[in-house]
Amino acid sequence: MPITVVGSIAYDTVKTPFGERERMLGGAAVHFALAASFFDDVRVVGPVGDDFGERQLAILRTRGVDVSDVELVAGGKTFFWQGEYGWDLNSRETLDTQLGVFEGFSPKLSENSRSSDVLFLANIQPDLQLDVRGQLPDARFVALDSMNLWIDIARDSLVRAIESVDCVILNDAELRQLTGKPNLVSAAREVLSWAPASSEAHAAGERPRGPSVIVAKQGEYGAALVTREGFFALPAYPLETVIDPTGAGDTFAGGLVGYIAAHPDEALTDELLRRAMAHATVLASFNVEEFGTERIQRLSGEEIAARIQELHAMTQFSGTPLRLRG
Amino acid sequence: MPITVVGSIAYDTVKTPFGERERMLGGAAVHFALAASFFDDVRVVGPVGDDFGERQLAILRTRGVDVSDVELVAGGKTFFWQGEYGWDLNSRETLDTQLGVFEGFSPKLSENSRSSDVLFLANIQPDLQLDVRGQLPDARFVALDSMNLWIDIARDSLVRAIESVDCVILNDAELRQLTGKPNLVSAAREVLSWAPASSEAHAAGERPRGPSVIVAKQGEYGAALVTREGFFALPAYPLETVIDPTGAGDTFAGGLVGYIAAHPDEALTDELLRRAMAHATVLASFNVEEFGTERIQRLSGEEIAARIQELHAMTQFSGTPLRLRG
Repeated sequence: MPITVVGSIAYDTVKTPFGERERMLGGAAVHFALAASFFDDVRVVGPVGDDFGERQLAILRTRGVDVSDVELVAGGKTFFWQGEYGWDLNSRETLDTQLGVFEGFSPKLSENSRSSDVLFLANIQPDLQLDVRGQLPDARFVALDSMNLWIDIARDSLVRAIESVDCVILNDAELRQLTGKPNLVSAAREVLSWAPASSEAHAAGERPRGPSVIVAKQGEYGAALVTREGFFALPAYPLETVIDPTGAGDTFAGGLVGYIAAHPDEALTDELLRRAMAHATVLASFNVEEFGTERIQRLSGEEIAARIQELHAMTQFSGTPLRLRG
Repeated sequence: MPITVVGSIAYDTVKTPFGERERMLGGAAVHFALAASFFDDVRVVGPVGDDFGERQLAILRTRGVDVSDVELVAGGKTFFWQGEYGWDLNSRETLDTQLGVFEGFSPKLSENSRSSDVLFLANIQPDLQLDVRGQLPDARFVALDSMNLWIDIARDSLVRAIESVDCVILNDAELRQLTGKPNLVSAAREVLSWAPASSEAHAAGERPRGPSVIVAKQGEYGAALVTREGFFALPAYPLETVIDPTGAGDTFAGGLVGYIAAHPDEALTDELLRRAMAHATVLASFNVEEFGTERIQRLSGEEIAARIQELHAMTQFSGTPLRLRG
């Protein structure tokens, strides 16, 4: 099923203990789209400025991504982010953010982008997420990412946006901040209990469903999945050298949502979601091996499949019970 | 195979967001012994003061733990620790530490304790760990825990102690601090490369083996295992309410080392170690459900076996490859 992603397209200047890059192609929608393109058709919606060119679009086109809804704002500058990571890559400092054309962004979706069955709302202002969600009322699966900024300054809007989607993908710490619950399981259960007020849902002609899938990203520790059915957790794929974590979360989301989109005939069971989590984990592990989109650009399906097998082998243990001294 | 553990026996006064307890039975050797007692015979070596009584010893005896090497120091006070945990239980503040009889502790092992095949050196001064290790030269499996304090003030001794054991169980952050490597896999590989200088080993009539098993405890995220054979990671068993994390690490070690001791006829393969990691994870999850040793005191073998099955179910996914758009 085709996937529409709405979010940032950016230039990133990044310094890590292993090197630096200036004005690389980046942005949540870009990282998401490249990862999801291994699974299904992807349509990108987001603004760029005059400084964005054919060379950048070609990176997306080479992976078959539909860029017709990438909006060129004449006279504008593409979103720019500059950051530096600490020695263990777990801390990062933002040195510069220039919103450029992203300031005052109002997503314009073509008929084509509105016809997708799957929608990913990358981290943008939650009222915009809600607006886009309303433009795809019949989407079969909708997922959302966000960040601490929106929890701080637009929590009510964010809660309404979350109530309108099926799947919430947040950092561990953001999930706790959002719910005020320090425990991951309780925080996730809290979000699972959210649903649109039934009157609103009725007015919109929808059944009030609310989120049924909560994914907590835990950085180098991996990710956890909480549904009404159960709990699942996967470690990150172990790497001896991580070069640049930028975009890992969006690449993870691209693997997760892409995998689900590629299985239109399967119900959204935990069994399916667990396989999707494994593919998300593997995509993210490739992303951090090099700067920006460098590694994913030349990634192959065979490499993904091989690492899925490795990850599978790394998480197996025999559950055979032992007679214990009770 | 019988297990000897050398370490602290303590009174803990603990405050968490869920309540408080005064002068509970605690200490690394106690938490370890109670957990390991589900698997094999355990002998505890450690000092207590006049303030320690039959009631406390009975808690260990009830689980079959051999307390004949618990040394009563006349006129002394039992080691005392007081701490308070923050809202998410990940931060804790030490409010008081009174070493008491633990100051100037020189472990005295009976013939019986020296005859054990398995030895756990809980977190004590590393020269003492090395001394005890020398008293069990033929032990089949020796594991060690430590803490940031010893990395700061006695790193050389700690490295020699580590070189003398088979298995190192440390917190994630301690492993990075010890090696100066920010990445878990590289840090673990570094420790795996350590081995006693061959001359020393020859003089002692031993083969120079060095550590072959590295376990990184990651708190609420679980634990990882690194050996020369491979990598394995397990999430913590998910709990909606954690009451008191005190002793979780030592309980984990008791489950791990106990499981290995209970399988004397199996080679120390990753397959065995993974099962041991699962039992360690489950024991630790029970420990944190209540204050101090309260939950483990009334734990049953059936409860452990049931949770092993649950943990197994929570970590399974199908590794079936998908044809990707490469």
